[in-house]
Amino acid sequence: MLNFQFYNPTRIIFGKETVSELSQQLPAQAKVLILYGGESAVKNGTIDEVKKALGEREYFEFGGIEPNPHYETLLKAVALVKQHQIDFLLAVGGGSVIDGTKFVSLATCYEGDPWEILSRKKVPVTALPIGTVLTLPATGSEMNCRGVVTRAETKEKLSFRTPLVYPQFSILDPTKTYTLPERQLANGIVDSFMHTLEQYLTYPIDAKVPDYFAEGVLRTLIEIAPDVLSQPDNYEARANFMWAATVALNGFLATGVPEDWTTHRIGHELTALYGIDHARTLAIILPALLEVKKEAKRGKLLQYAKRVWDITEGSDEQKVDLAIQKTCEFFESVGIKTHFSDYGLGREVIEPILQQMEKHGQINLGEHQDITLSTSRQILEKAL
Amino acid sequence: MLNFQFYNPTRIIFGKETVSELSQQLPAQAKVLILYGGESAVKNGTIDEVKKALGEREYFEFGGIEPNPHYETLLKAVALVKQHQIDFLLAVGGGSVIDGTKFVSLATCYEGDPWEILSRKKVPVTALPIGTVLTLPATGSEMNCRGVVTRAETKEKLSFRTPLVYPQFSILDPTKTYTLPERQLANGIVDSFMHTLEQYLTYPIDAKVPDYFAEGVLRTLIEIAPDVLSQPDNYEARANFMWAATVALNGFLATGVPEDWTTHRIGHELTALYGIDHARTLAIILPALLEVKKEAKRGKLLQYAKRVWDITEGSDEQKVDLAIQKTCEFFESVGIKTHFSDYGLGREVIEPILQQMEKHGQINLGEHQDITLSTSRQILEKAL
Repeated sequence: MLNFQFYNPTRIIFGKETVSELSQQLPAQAKVLILYGGESAVKNGTIDEVKKALGEREYFEFGGIEPNPHYETLLKAVALVKQHQIDFLLAVGGGSVIDGTKFVSLATCYEGDPWEILSRKKVPVTALPIGTVLTLPATGSEMNCRGVVTRAETKEKLSFRTPLVYPQFSILDPTKTYTLPERQLANGIVDSFMHTLEQYLTYPIDAKVPDYFAEGVLRTLIEIAPDVLSQPDNYEARANFMWAATVALNGFLATGVPEDWTTHRIGHELTALYGIDHARTLAIILPALLEVKKEAKRGKLLQYAKRVWDITEGSDEQKVDLAIQKTCEFFESVGIKTHFSDYGLGREVIEPILQQMEKHGQINLGEHQDITLSTSRQILEKAL
Repeated sequence: MLNFQFYNPTRIIFGKETVSELSQQLPAQAKVLILYGGESAVKNGTIDEVKKALGEREYFEFGGIEPNPHYETLLKAVALVKQHQIDFLLAVGGGSVIDGTKFVSLATCYEGDPWEILSRKKVPVTALPIGTVLTLPATGSEMNCRGVVTRAETKEKLSFRTPLVYPQFSILDPTKTYTLPERQLANGIVDSFMHTLEQYLTYPIDAKVPDYFAEGVLRTLIEIAPDVLSQPDNYEARANFMWAATVALNGFLATGVPEDWTTHRIGHELTALYGIDHARTLAIILPALLEVKKEAKRGKLLQYAKRVWDITEGSDEQKVDLAIQKTCEFFESVGIKTHFSDYGLGREVIEPILQQMEKHGQINLGEHQDITLSTSRQILEKAL
């Protein structure tokens, strides 16, 4: 087991009809900016419900935060915050809205060029407090201190991470997911699954608690996926999905274990360059990565085969191959394809992706820091 | 899945040689009281290591906090805190020292009679900040907001719970457990196991994440118990034990599920009246409780049989019986007996325990609030 620190002060308020808890959680005198994405949050009544829960508090609104939130868009929100001296940010939406809100929180308080928060990993001394009302289980952003922002102008998708942006609270009402389109649900399932794998499929280090927990999250996602997709108002399926997605990236699964994150690093470049949904990029890259790193990951792949997929027959080689195959089948079963060709892309993607990775220092990736650009090339070749 | 709130702001610093992290975690100007238990913490050098890590900070010491910390002892620490205007409490020890420190933190800031914190569940508006250096994995107190204190004079063991007493940080260095006596290790294993069962063995409610997590903690404890007891310097075994014990009662396992806690309620009276180690009281009460509530707990007992003990053969009745039997065998395997008669006690205990339970309002216990004094009597009869 590796040494670690764990710290996560976000309060989770989980369950039916919990949006009204907002009034308990916000400071009485807060001047609030409600940030959200598309019109669906307005149409399905969530924004109205939020406004009602704010009571007498003064609030402003900032809609239109896009998937893979744009740096350019978020700077407009920063201007609004400064103009009205807003002192509390309330994100209503999924990971993109929450990540964007985190960036607004930092950028408002940063003295220099806000791009440095992404490009040079600089952070201010303080940040504006954040609360969230989650409507799309996927990224775990509602209970972590990370975010990813895309600069549309230069097609760069970069991340930040600082304890300053832990939400003070997050409200998770599974009924808020009832109106989500199937595509977003499928993306959320694969995204949560991949967050877990990035912290799990490395090498054995006898860290029993995080391993059992990761396997529990993976099994949960496999079990609930069919009902989540086919039964929009199945509360239990949505509740299990929502809590699993949060737990998948709140830090708990990483306690004492090595982490990989190569799939995400490559995937971010893919989204930035070709606009493929985040989760779909992960489904393209992971199977190829596992093929390329099969030997280095053998110990953990065998554990994954046995404890997640109940594979007990065959040689070790066969078990590993079957586990990878079942992972692909799981992604495909929720409608997410696993090769570049499925998205109309071919060999032409390889050079641009590798160039961007080099530009962003995405070299020496993985739990052994041995995934060089040359290894990434092999992975991209396999993913065609 | 039930609605829930989860909030736990304690920072965990886990691993080898982490005591030196103290200097990072404590305010630079803190005036510190180091609280500890017996002389072992002094003899094995931990107290010296802690003092060194405090650097230039002013500190005082308060040793001699006993197992099941005494109200009377803790009031002396409160007097010391007030006398020297101490502003940070540092617990060095196991659950008793940490629980005691939490009580000192509250009692120092409480205006009225501090007994009311226990007898009437009153709490002050603020409390002194707490940090801990854990030396005995067992109670989870290092990462929760609970505590139990015993009034020796009246033989009453009562609990409190308030977010005010979450430790700001807890340092968990598994090497600090190397010198623990076997009896305390065995108690810690059973205590952690029972904390998990209290949040797990109720009725099925399809809360997949907490169920898988609980099963992971239980399996971890079963797997590491032999090595923990036989190999004092097996770092991996001690590390897995330490993290499992913390996770067993940091609130995570209770997210969205019903809880029981009857075994603890009865067990506390047993310790207060007869001085039996806390963990041992739990090992006496649980098997009897499971026999009495076998029908109501059938669904979860079957899940426990399958997913914790790998029991797949036989009728449901046989599976349930075997799961209970294996639980008893596990307790006995670490040297902890499961009947009153093993501790030289007989039928004479029943009335005094029931009288104390009635006095402390320990009626209508369990996940269905249906364990009346009459049911508790049945449990005590079965435990003879």
